[in-house]
Amino acid sequence: MKNLSLFCFLILFLSGFQTVQGQSRPRELGVPFGVLAPGKLNAITDVAGVKVGHFTKIEGDSIRTGVTAILAHGGNIFQEKVPAAIYVGNGFGKLAGITQVQELGLLESPIILTNTLSVAAGIEGAVRYTLNQSGNESVQSVNAVVGETNDGFLNDIRGMHISPEEVIATIQAAKEDLVQEGNIGAGTGTICFGWKGGIGTASRKLPESLGGYTVGVLVQSNFGGNLQIGGVPVGEKLEKYPFRNAIEKADGSCMIVVATDAPVLSRNLERMAKRAMMGLAKTGGIASNGSGDYVISFSTAESLRSAYSAKSGELEQAEILRNDDMSALFMAVIEATEEAIINSLFAAETMEGKQGRTVEALPKEQVLEWINKQ
Amino acid sequence: MKNLSLFCFLILFLSGFQTVQGQSRPRELGVPFGVLAPGKLNAITDVAGVKVGHFTKIEGDSIRTGVTAILAHGGNIFQEKVPAAIYVGNGFGKLAGITQVQELGLLESPIILTNTLSVAAGIEGAVRYTLNQSGNESVQSVNAVVGETNDGFLNDIRGMHISPEEVIATIQAAKEDLVQEGNIGAGTGTICFGWKGGIGTASRKLPESLGGYTVGVLVQSNFGGNLQIGGVPVGEKLEKYPFRNAIEKADGSCMIVVATDAPVLSRNLERMAKRAMMGLAKTGGIASNGSGDYVISFSTAESLRSAYSAKSGELEQAEILRNDDMSALFMAVIEATEEAIINSLFAAETMEGKQGRTVEALPKEQVLEWINKQ
Amino acid sequence: MKNLSLFCFLILFLSGFQTVQGQSRPRELGVPFGVLAPGKLNAITDVAGVKVGHFTKIEGDSIRTGVTAILAHGGNIFQEKVPAAIYVGNGFGKLAGITQVQELGLLESPIILTNTLSVAAGIEGAVRYTLNQSGNESVQSVNAVVGETNDGFLNDIRGMHISPEEVIATIQAAKEDLVQEGNIGAGTGTICFGWKGGIGTASRKLPESLGGYTVGVLVQSNFGGNLQIGGVPVGEKLEKYPFRNAIEKADGSCMIVVATDAPVLSRNLERMAKRAMMGLAKTGGIASNGSGDYVISFSTAESLRSAYSAKSGELEQAEILRNDDMSALFMAVIEATEEAIINSLFAAETMEGKQGRTVEALPKEQVLEWINKQ
Amino acid sequence: MKNLSLFCFLILFLSGFQTVQGQSRPRELGVPFGVLAPGKLNAITDVAGVKVGHFTKIEGDSIRTGVTAILAHGGNIFQEKVPAAIYVGNGFGKLAGITQVQELGLLESPIILTNTLSVAAGIEGAVRYTLNQSGNESVQSVNAVVGETNDGFLNDIRGMHISPEEVIATIQAAKEDLVQEGNIGAGTGTICFGWKGGIGTASRKLPESLGGYTVGVLVQSNFGGNLQIGGVPVGEKLEKYPFRNAIEKADGSCMIVVATDAPVLSRNLERMAKRAMMGLAKTGGIASNGSGDYVISFSTAESLRSAYSAKSGELEQAEILRNDDMSALFMAVIEATEEAIINSLFAAETMEGKQGRTVEALPKEQVLEWINKQ
Repeated sequence: MKNLSLFCFLILFLSGFQTVQGQSRPRELGVPFGVLAPGKLNAITDVAGVKVGHFTKIEGDSIRTGVTAILAHGGNIFQEKVPAAIYVGNGFGKLAGITQVQELGLLESPIILTNTLSVAAGIEGAVRYTLNQSGNESVQSVNAVVGETNDGFLNDIRGMHISPEEVIATIQAAKEDLVQEGNIGAGTGTICFGWKGGIGTASRKLPESLGGYTVGVLVQSNFGGNLQIGGVPVGEKLEKYPFRNAIEKADGSCMIVVATDAPVLSRNLERMAKRAMMGLAKTGGIASNGSGDYVISFSTAESLRSAYSAKSGELEQAEILRNDDMSALFMAVIEATEEAIINSLFAAETMEGKQGRTVEALPKEQVLEWINKQ
Repeated sequence: MKNLSLFCFLILFLSGFQTVQGQSRPRELGVPFGVLAPGKLNAITDVAGVKVGHFTKIEGDSIRTGVTAILAHGGNIFQEKVPAAIYVGNGFGKLAGITQVQELGLLESPIILTNTLSVAAGIEGAVRYTLNQSGNESVQSVNAVVGETNDGFLNDIRGMHISPEEVIATIQAAKEDLVQEGNIGAGTGTICFGWKGGIGTASRKLPESLGGYTVGVLVQSNFGGNLQIGGVPVGEKLEKYPFRNAIEKADGSCMIVVATDAPVLSRNLERMAKRAMMGLAKTGGIASNGSGDYVISFSTAESLRSAYSAKSGELEQAEILRNDDMSALFMAVIEATEEAIINSLFAAETMEGKQGRTVEALPKEQVLEWINKQ
Repeated sequence: MKNLSLFCFLILFLSGFQTVQGQSRPRELGVPFGVLAPGKLNAITDVAGVKVGHFTKIEGDSIRTGVTAILAHGGNIFQEKVPAAIYVGNGFGKLAGITQVQELGLLESPIILTNTLSVAAGIEGAVRYTLNQSGNESVQSVNAVVGETNDGFLNDIRGMHISPEEVIATIQAAKEDLVQEGNIGAGTGTICFGWKGGIGTASRKLPESLGGYTVGVLVQSNFGGNLQIGGVPVGEKLEKYPFRNAIEKADGSCMIVVATDAPVLSRNLERMAKRAMMGLAKTGGIASNGSGDYVISFSTAESLRSAYSAKSGELEQAEILRNDDMSALFMAVIEATEEAIINSLFAAETMEGKQGRTVEALPKEQVLEWINKQ
Repeated sequence: MKNLSLFCFLILFLSGFQTVQGQSRPRELGVPFGVLAPGKLNAITDVAGVKVGHFTKIEGDSIRTGVTAILAHGGNIFQEKVPAAIYVGNGFGKLAGITQVQELGLLESPIILTNTLSVAAGIEGAVRYTLNQSGNESVQSVNAVVGETNDGFLNDIRGMHISPEEVIATIQAAKEDLVQEGNIGAGTGTICFGWKGGIGTASRKLPESLGGYTVGVLVQSNFGGNLQIGGVPVGEKLEKYPFRNAIEKADGSCMIVVATDAPVLSRNLERMAKRAMMGLAKTGGIASNGSGDYVISFSTAESLRSAYSAKSGELEQAEILRNDDMSALFMAVIEATEEAIINSLFAAETMEGKQGRTVEALPKEQVLEWINKQ
């Protein structure tokens, strides 16, 4: 099975590639997203060194799931930990690893996103990957950060179809450069605002006068609310929003990963993470009771990495951004999160899954028509 | 001075009255605010029993400040405490009283809003008011909840012009029914998105199928960001948003009070409070580094009041809403907060203050033209 | 392997039984532990309905680990969730499930304790157990609460020797009545204050005048500090405490589970959980940097259970203890936690493990001599 | 009145002086307090630069209160902010200033301790002091950190007898060197474990091999529990502990200030603050429902001060202690807090106050006899 999965993985990885970040992303189609400029790829990988891997598992009628791995840098993350924070927008979720990140202010593993019932596989994969990395031979404690959303409408989630080996393969396949969006990786079977959701990404690059820092965001969109795109109340126009009648619900979740090269430690990274929920709010999300909305943020600033091997008594040298200079980064997080979510909706395609259920893609042409009419 | 202030207060209270909640609120002018219906007054006082008082202090060239008091009910709040929570959106502020509310889940004083350097006067006023209330003769501990924003651009804030007596008068003048908006009370000298801000309020009434509960919001708007109204990127169109150049900043704060008659205890009230920041986000606020963004929420459900005089050993009988039924309330908070903020901008009028500075009112006609063109 | 493990489990379970809670517990030997009376068994199972299961895995030279499961009640916990809270004393640990407990105030799974690198197995076991329980056929989301401490000094922890099947077997073997202590279950390979640690338990029963409630505590002791027993500075007398020289460290962790039949919801359960760290402090623990000190608390009060199957719109009826009546419960938690930790040290026996390392049992006779001389 | 108060202040300040830190402190009398060495004065002022001021107000039959001010350094604290954190042990209290410290990780005012109903005076005093300091002419926002405990058993607390001017005088009188303990300053009218409490202080100096850092603690003791001193269960032996009968209660509060010269930022300062509650636990405190137990911690490391006047874009240079090197500091906080509390009890003398009530001093000779018999 492992080999088949890897094979499957390669096929999907390659086949999906050409449609990524092409001409059809919302920004290129005229959807407005604030005032700050995106980075070169408009992706989380605009933050230098960040790597993303996807594993997509579509099998038979009812397996529609996957894994996405985000690596803070290409080295040994356990040995060179990065400053990090995790903010809970709404905690109806199974995120693993939060308390150690909050206590120590550090991330020491790849970030794994998958489905709700595969968190154990995610942890086991991240732990085994770390234990087996060169240089970690004596490591006896690994804090794996694993997030999830629930793809159980389209996916046979109770089957727990993700294995630790698939998680490891996802980590190993992670790379810099373009990031695939839509029905891919952990976003394979997700639903957002009643339409097919998935993986989305975006970035902002501050002008040099504000430090020139980059903020990148990646989302696994699986939540509900009253969709708004480029100022257009899409949910209302399409008559698809919560509490319109007894049937429509808003539940679901959103995992958000925020990367930056700005030199910020955990306290200010947590503040940045909080702003991602404000970006989500701008899309119309309401963080419903059943949402597991989490934001994991980290800094890639090399000078702030905490060397595991450092000797006791050595001080850590840090050059850190002042509180007073954080606001532009906050705005960058808000804008990039909003755009990443809308990107996920535009990239996702109609999918049929478990029990013959179909989730439609967002009617993009209609949405664009409304937007362009403004 | 006290008498003069009270006189001044009465004049302003009465003079301001006729423009309140009249035909010129944004909703009446065609600005869209989501899908849930507002309450009768579209104000926090739609939550039965909630009272609001304003004291406005405009004197000479440079005093432009005031006090707003919100009472959870008309009885003795110390003796009949209400379930409450406080959420910190961004904590660059001087809010008093948070830890006891978080620990005990209860509010036992009027909520006072004023300017940053008058928090002491706010506390002293609320404490003296409570100590002197009939029935509180043996009370030796009062947790006053006092919030603030910084009106120091227009107001001589260093003069600390609010007295405890003025705070007490504000509490005593609180009443149910209509709530004045704009340059009034604690909103007298505030600035929002670069335009004149102030007090705003709004409400939502859930359909009976969702419980029929009411959510009311009152804001003291004094923050910045990239203003968006009814889907229109007003900040961009008016070229007034942060980081556009070296001058424009986003700092400032927003105090938000959320009232509901839904039977919810502190844990779910805190979740509701968190959603108010999502409503703020929809207006374009970014919770900048210098913001003191706080949300105070409480429930007026009589069955959940905690009687101070209860005998030890008596259990508290509570009928509480299930977690699963919270989402519609979350959505109500988001919608009402967004509308309350925009209401504050529409009600506020151009003001001249300290050092001859002028802050213009939002160019409402221009905004409405854009909105109605959509 | 699964069958062998189960066989092994049964042998150990039965063989260990006769030494449990016999004449040799500290209290019986004259160690003083505060002023409140213990329950009948002086164990977490004095809280009616609570069940505990142990799985002990001692194989070859270097497998010294196990699993302990605590069940809040004997029914379907997912369908009949109990009020719960989790407090982080020091978060250098991998505890899973915290955010959902904090958000919803509810526990919906057995609590699993194991070793640091077997958290994934713990989650998978608890999830599979829940999915397969009768009545849970349509469940697609399970929040498993899994805690751990690091037994890697004696145990080949990198071998990840706990399987999900062993976790399920531990849950299924859980029972009311006596609880084994010492080198058993998740305490098999742990170290405490430099001596062999393990599982410990204790309880307190309030007098009827204070409500008559029971508080039960179970610990997995694996931490360091300056041991104090019954007022005697044991660490100093035995010259075994941190920072005495360059070698002695205090690292390690403590998982603490607090059960009560008092009718308290999550806010007050969190307050109770915080007091467990005060009981740990009384033993001389310092919550060192490397500690993963967590307290999971829950109430078994039947009237406060949250039925998963309840219909939307139905209110939950709750009779809850007033804040003013919490203090005796706080004191009970402190006393029972201190005693549970000391109980774990008295029950644990010298163990040889990985790489020929030996961890000695506490020299009980010496300690008792000091105590009785007072 | 102001002049009279100042006069009174000077008298008391001088008269109380000679009994301070003399031969009668518990350590000198043989009470054991852990294993780390105290600093030279065994006081918070062992942390270089820290200043403490007391104002004691004893007037007539029923005024028994005061103010204690702790300054992180002798310069302009607003302009040279220090890293800080605040931890809430139990939040039934009125502490002001917490959210800004938590958000920004900085302290910008003197720390003021006083009685529960004089927090407003404390804030106003600290704000006016800051506004009027040279260099602060354009300051429009000051975050005053003011803590309190309730001295209303002996003091006419409802009279609100502390004025802002007295607070300013206390700040101005603060000095390095010896710190008075007992019935002085904010400890004038407090009660601890049923005996007269007050101000206490202690310190620890780590050996050079652990960094050589100093930790100083100051407490305002006003809480209850089951008193334990040097291993002796004093509360039980003196039959004075909570829940022994229907009358004895444990309520009350403890304000704890922790200073260090170790280079630690807010995250690790918060961890240190948490350990102070573990020191309190060792004295037998239970953090009862009615307690306002707060710990304010700060670092005096000059390199970590955040210059208010710094230019945007300048990074802050920080040399910070590694997480791995925190444990000895944790132990130092625990030991110094325990000792500071016991010091407050030994220094406090029997006091008569409001309504002819008398609170006895701890029977020190009896306690010492028990301790020395061990």
